[in-house]
Amino acid sequence: MHVFDEAIALNHTGGDAFAGATHPAWANMVGPFGGITAAQLLQAVLMHPQRLGDPVALTVNFCAAVADGPFTIEAVPARTNRSTQHWMLRMLQGDAVVMSGSAMTALRRETFGVTEHSIPPVSPPEQVPQVHARTRPEWVGRYEMRPIEGAIPAQWDGTDLGHSRTRLWMRDGALRPLDYPSLAAIADLFFPRLWSRRAMLVPLGTVTMTVYFLADAQQIASVGSGYLLGQAQGQRFHMGYLDQTGQIWSEVGELLATTHQLVYYKE
Amino acid sequence: MHVFDEAIALNHTGGDAFAGATHPAWANMVGPFGGITAAQLLQAVLMHPQRLGDPVALTVNFCAAVADGPFTIEAVPARTNRSTQHWMLRMLQGDAVVMSGSAMTALRRETFGVTEHSIPPVSPPEQVPQVHARTRPEWVGRYEMRPIEGAIPAQWDGTDLGHSRTRLWMRDGALRPLDYPSLAAIADLFFPRLWSRRAMLVPLGTVTMTVYFLADAQQIASVGSGYLLGQAQGQRFHMGYLDQTGQIWSEVGELLATTHQLVYYKE
Repeated sequence: MHVFDEAIALNHTGGDAFAGATHPAWANMVGPFGGITAAQLLQAVLMHPQRLGDPVALTVNFCAAVADGPFTIEAVPARTNRSTQHWMLRMLQGDAVVMSGSAMTALRRETFGVTEHSIPPVSPPEQVPQVHARTRPEWVGRYEMRPIEGAIPAQWDGTDLGHSRTRLWMRDGALRPLDYPSLAAIADLFFPRLWSRRAMLVPLGTVTMTVYFLADAQQIASVGSGYLLGQAQGQRFHMGYLDQTGQIWSEVGELLATTHQLVYYKE
Repeated sequence: MHVFDEAIALNHTGGDAFAGATHPAWANMVGPFGGITAAQLLQAVLMHPQRLGDPVALTVNFCAAVADGPFTIEAVPARTNRSTQHWMLRMLQGDAVVMSGSAMTALRRETFGVTEHSIPPVSPPEQVPQVHARTRPEWVGRYEMRPIEGAIPAQWDGTDLGHSRTRLWMRDGALRPLDYPSLAAIADLFFPRLWSRRAMLVPLGTVTMTVYFLADAQQIASVGSGYLLGQAQGQRFHMGYLDQTGQIWSEVGELLATTHQLVYYKE
């Protein structure tokens, strides 16, 4: 069993409730990698017997640090329409809400289509060296990362790099076909924009993340275990909060998802 | 009383519940303008006696058409930390959930700050003519709009305009000092990107919107009733769903908010 599937394995305990647990392979500096928590919340929706259609949107709010150990997810279908469904999400540890969020699933059909945000011109993944950080949280080792621009700073010397844009090729380190939960996790893979911009290890954490799934299930499946091009950039850093806007393309240039997050930082 | 304040007036009926009603001045083609509904949900948070700090993030999900008439909003403080608070939101009409969402409020303090997404070079608002559409939903008349680029098409002839980017100066038509609810409403002011791109009146509707408030309360207050520069663009249109990414600056170039939404379209 793939270590990603181990981590998102949930037990439907009845009604809208699902039991799961954090997984040591996905540990971050404190608690689990936010991306795996997002994937677990989405997995509860996907496992729900009343689900209609595929994910089109996911918002997760990091209410408190998730402690290592078991958790319960509540995935409530708040509204079901003919071709769309809206979900309200909570993750609990004991009585405490540690995550909240919402998701939307939908039946999709053929329409007009066009991509405006095209894949930028970058070198192919085979020509971009893979990074192997010496010290890093455990989850980073779950991914193959080939940074083209805006890699994690080599020296934490406080140099203002002038912008926070990162571009990298990325995929699961142990190959696994892409699906909605793994795409949700990868949306949180970019290291914090403040570290990128300032080359300073300031304390920080994502407080909310949204992912729009712009590819249909067939396009996502056709990616297989291929490379994804990720791009992320902060738009404003101000009084303890910064935003990040991001895009994820397949290697053939299909825009699979766009993502946004708000990050708290301390100084 | 300003017509915006009339629309967001709620009655705290106890606990986490607030009663309100749609307002005819904010009518859209079907039901109310989504921006005013977003503002009503945020206003419930702002009125809640347990609120901590100012809004930093808001996500609203348009679960079903809001009917003209009364509604109840539930704003539940799901998690309160030392300097942050996470809210779960629902709007109900009878027993039906018509809106869901989440918000985050926080106490902010001075930190490092920088803006990466600068205000684009555009003509000042006084040099950009105001548009007065002949036929339009009622709510459009609540705003002064001065489009610089990507105005609503003059002819619905199906011409592919090559991109969907809109830039416009905008503010309340009847002047009113900017605050968090009015900024949330203005985040939904951009007309749908599909109409912009294709010059075709295809049926569509926003299904979810997120706003990140990147300015603190003092900066928002200092805008007063000044102009805002709005920019919005679609990134991908595919199988019935498109995303929009947007930015809102003050006239002096402070990035007040970034916003994203997912829009359903029919053909």
